[in-house]
Amino acid sequence: MQFNGVLANLKTYEAGKPIELVVREYGIEAKDVIKLASNENPRGCSPKVIEAVRAEAVHMNRYPDDSMYELKESLAKKYHVEDKNIIIGSGSDQVIEIAIHAKANANTKVLMAGITFAMYEIYALQTGAKVLRTPSAQHNLKEMLEIYKANKDISIIMLCIPNNPLGECLDAKDVYAFLDQIDKETLVVVDAAYLEYARFKDPVKNIDAQELITKYPNAIYTGTFSKAYGLGGMRCGYGIAQPEIIQTFLKLRAPFNITNLTLKAAIVALSDEAFMDASVKENFEQMSAYEAFAKELGFKVIESYTNFIVLEFDASKNSGAIAQKLMEKGIIVRNLGSYGMNAIRVTIGTPEQNARFFELFKTIYM
Amino acid sequence: MQFNGVLANLKTYEAGKPIELVVREYGIEAKDVIKLASNENPRGCSPKVIEAVRAEAVHMNRYPDDSMYELKESLAKKYHVEDKNIIIGSGSDQVIEIAIHAKANANTKVLMAGITFAMYEIYALQTGAKVLRTPSAQHNLKEMLEIYKANKDISIIMLCIPNNPLGECLDAKDVYAFLDQIDKETLVVVDAAYLEYARFKDPVKNIDAQELITKYPNAIYTGTFSKAYGLGGMRCGYGIAQPEIIQTFLKLRAPFNITNLTLKAAIVALSDEAFMDASVKENFEQMSAYEAFAKELGFKVIESYTNFIVLEFDASKNSGAIAQKLMEKGIIVRNLGSYGMNAIRVTIGTPEQNARFFELFKTIYM
Repeated sequence: MQFNGVLANLKTYEAGKPIELVVREYGIEAKDVIKLASNENPRGCSPKVIEAVRAEAVHMNRYPDDSMYELKESLAKKYHVEDKNIIIGSGSDQVIEIAIHAKANANTKVLMAGITFAMYEIYALQTGAKVLRTPSAQHNLKEMLEIYKANKDISIIMLCIPNNPLGECLDAKDVYAFLDQIDKETLVVVDAAYLEYARFKDPVKNIDAQELITKYPNAIYTGTFSKAYGLGGMRCGYGIAQPEIIQTFLKLRAPFNITNLTLKAAIVALSDEAFMDASVKENFEQMSAYEAFAKELGFKVIESYTNFIVLEFDASKNSGAIAQKLMEKGIIVRNLGSYGMNAIRVTIGTPEQNARFFELFKTIYM
Repeated sequence: MQFNGVLANLKTYEAGKPIELVVREYGIEAKDVIKLASNENPRGCSPKVIEAVRAEAVHMNRYPDDSMYELKESLAKKYHVEDKNIIIGSGSDQVIEIAIHAKANANTKVLMAGITFAMYEIYALQTGAKVLRTPSAQHNLKEMLEIYKANKDISIIMLCIPNNPLGECLDAKDVYAFLDQIDKETLVVVDAAYLEYARFKDPVKNIDAQELITKYPNAIYTGTFSKAYGLGGMRCGYGIAQPEIIQTFLKLRAPFNITNLTLKAAIVALSDEAFMDASVKENFEQMSAYEAFAKELGFKVIESYTNFIVLEFDASKNSGAIAQKLMEKGIIVRNLGSYGMNAIRVTIGTPEQNARFFELFKTIYM
């Protein structure tokens, strides 16, 4: 059967390997598998969220409130915006998908960093748009601006702040200076999935959503409950933008795009910021251990403003082989070989998980 | 800001009003509101599912197994197909969205019944495709075939079996005879969201997914956990088709499109078919009460093979006013005025809910 032409050469996104797969393939018990591959919060989520979701479980037969009134009210309060500035997605991924589908098409181009979140490209290619990347792997606004000025048909610019899978983070003032140069007809997506981490590490990284969309009506800020709030499995994110953008995006949002338990989880998560703050604090305490470990073993890391760290190896080592050996021993990490790097991305785990990683890694690396 | 042209005239789907909204707008306590508007299972879901979801709630920080191995295995066993024949969606809606986005475009047409599930049209219009409808409101395969033969550019045919929001249901043998006339390049979606109900009421309505896709490689069967399984709030559905179709659709499926609690809920729901069977049985016992009630009051119903029933009024009554009055008293139903009908769609509730509906309706209708 023939399908729409853009699908012919499109690849399917390969998600990080789940614990279940390692259990099945290597015969390791689930309790002995440590997953440091998908940047999940190793502390779980707020106990208040677990309690609320368990209580709500008697209502699984009921569709969620599709207006998402209460969640939007909570987010509006947190970000000093209004309900009409907010769209809720099944993860911020879905808001990004909608943004790209609303704006890109076969006659336009989508601009992004050399190495950044893989779904940007997939969503862009689904529309037939062409993807342009900077020569630098990490975000380089000078290069982006040059490409932008040389191409009149760029419909969207993707900024991942901080960047997944590398971990670097632009300064807010540099982002604003960049946005000053961008035409108001070009949509700029500020993907802030890990910004809770970056703003803790260094306040100059913080981008205020309300300020962003007020100064730049062509910008959209996307955030998520999947990382610092520890709700990756519940699939909830959001976009904050001017009402004109939100109204259009709502036309592409399928009704009931999150579960009713997700709605409850997100609302309660916002009421327990102390849990999130503690998660972020411990993350950076533990990241110091990774930096010290890398120094000890003599390989490079990319300074990270997230809950993961990239370990780069020299040509004597192979990141694919290292990731494979770790997995056979029950530790799942992300090999960045498919990005053209000889590196692995490791999610910062709990102190116990990280200690086990260090121990096991030494036996493999030496 | 300019967006893709197809969005300009696109409408946003209006979901059934949630209980929360009636509580807010009319000051009625949540416990006194009866929602018979969204065809949810009034018995809830299997207690085994609630128990399993509560246990799984400690893992909300973890992304689901994106291969959905275990759920696909369970569905494959139920339907006598293989994993490669299955795609999982956030509700069967999402599988339908993917099907339409994969196949329809601005140069093609999408064919459907005069009155059927509203999202078909929205998804079609998102691609720029033209929507063709039969003159008859209910499914009429003779009319469909005539339109199909008169239009060479129909990329997809949507069959809602049984049909939402009307409730009628085609016979399987008539569907097969129709499919014999359809070119193998035309995708035919058999939306079986309510088929658990129809096959209980009359086995001649049953469409066997395995038989369907074997005889007709251009067909896809979609099913859901939202209705008979009582999991509307958890957003899980599936498509069953030939691997060629599934592989293409997977390119448009975003990773982690259902939550990990949803995955658990669906797997456990399939292990408790007794709950589902009991729900379906009670549904039709209660539907008889609606039919008797309509006869008593002298208005028409459409014979229904689902968990809802359409009550049609003569010109002396107005369905919008009736739905509004019911809502002000705490009973939410679906007015079908927007479909050009003077009718309401009522979900079959529990015996107690239905008794209250009959009582209240009489005070409004008389």
